[in-house]
Amino acid sequence: MEITPIAYYRGPLGSKFGLPRQASLVPGLEGRIEFVPPYNVPDALRGLEGFSRIWVIWGFSESVREDGSWSPTVRPPRLGGNARMGVWATRSPFRPNFLGLSALSITDLDFSKPSIGVEGADLSDGSPIYDIKPYLPYADAFPHERGGFAQSAPGSVLEVYVSPAAEGVFSEDKMSVLRRLLSLDPRPSYQRDPSRVYGMLFEGRNVRFRIIDDKLEIIEIV
Amino acid sequence: MEITPIAYYRGPLGSKFGLPRQASLVPGLEGRIEFVPPYNVPDALRGLEGFSRIWVIWGFSESVREDGSWSPTVRPPRLGGNARMGVWATRSPFRPNFLGLSALSITDLDFSKPSIGVEGADLSDGSPIYDIKPYLPYADAFPHERGGFAQSAPGSVLEVYVSPAAEGVFSEDKMSVLRRLLSLDPRPSYQRDPSRVYGMLFEGRNVRFRIIDDKLEIIEIV
Repeated sequence: MEITPIAYYRGPLGSKFGLPRQASLVPGLEGRIEFVPPYNVPDALRGLEGFSRIWVIWGFSESVREDGSWSPTVRPPRLGGNARMGVWATRSPFRPNFLGLSALSITDLDFSKPSIGVEGADLSDGSPIYDIKPYLPYADAFPHERGGFAQSAPGSVLEVYVSPAAEGVFSEDKMSVLRRLLSLDPRPSYQRDPSRVYGMLFEGRNVRFRIIDDKLEIIEIV
Repeated sequence: MEITPIAYYRGPLGSKFGLPRQASLVPGLEGRIEFVPPYNVPDALRGLEGFSRIWVIWGFSESVREDGSWSPTVRPPRLGGNARMGVWATRSPFRPNFLGLSALSITDLDFSKPSIGVEGADLSDGSPIYDIKPYLPYADAFPHERGGFAQSAPGSVLEVYVSPAAEGVFSEDKMSVLRRLLSLDPRPSYQRDPSRVYGMLFEGRNVRFRIIDDKLEIIEIV
């Protein structure tokens, strides 16, 4: 089946490095869903003002393997990157059909463009969106299910320090979102090299940092 | 983007007429997800035994318009079929990209085929499935969201009577599921014709019934 983007996500993270590993882990992380022709019809949003959350079905466009190859097992970061799990038992982007699924809070509706303001997305800027559905608590909310190896949300594991050279670039709000993102440890689970300097695209800038033990230092923002 | 079925749903309802209008409305409604080559790999299910529920992203194959045309608004049955709502504010099958989303309880895992037993599906027999993900309560369960015009589950609205001619065809368990399905009122919301006899495909048979006021009579099962 051929599917076509109805919208694209616009947000502060320029690539998938540094994205939260699920939706809603970083509540202040704001972005917008911008509809594209011929789907940019204000009428298609009518009634969405009665809902506080939406489902977004989107494409892991950065993880697509053009040859269609796939692996039946993946190594979830939650298991330290050592244990293999079946792809249907994980939310890994490396999966057949490359579809992502995120429940996002609505912050505002702009009927003029149209676009939808959302919070807590685990999408990078430019990700294609294939469907939007209202979140229905009676059909979608099951708080007492067994969540396997990911029963509870991953917590902040790193203390974040900001070097003087990196201060004053972003507003306090943006800095607070950046700190929360980094505290979740964006490294691939197999990398533990204290001399390595990482770069993360955030708000159009390159945030450079390194990690020693459980301390992360933002070195500079360029 | 081209997406390919990884599995098909096998269940008692032979077409979309009579399907519950969301997942989990009819808990005893059992079915199976049967993987197809090259995705029928037992290893891809490894770890799923730790989870009690899955997300299924599937195709509204009976609602596909081949010419790709779509309407920005639809008439949800919940509003009596009179009010128009934007397609992004409804779970209507008539939507761009024709993707369905259902949270289903796992009843069993068969690693030999492989297949997944599920309960409460709003899919008809033969529906294509494009992705399966574990349900993660911390990222997916938000019981206190505003659910617009569909805040709570639709209840049973019809009393179901079984004529003597229709008795003894199905087991008690199957009859109980059938009664629950029919009590939810499968009619399109604009149809209120008491002389009309409806036919619903259930367990390979045609269940014929009519509805007068709030009473539904199963006339025969052929």
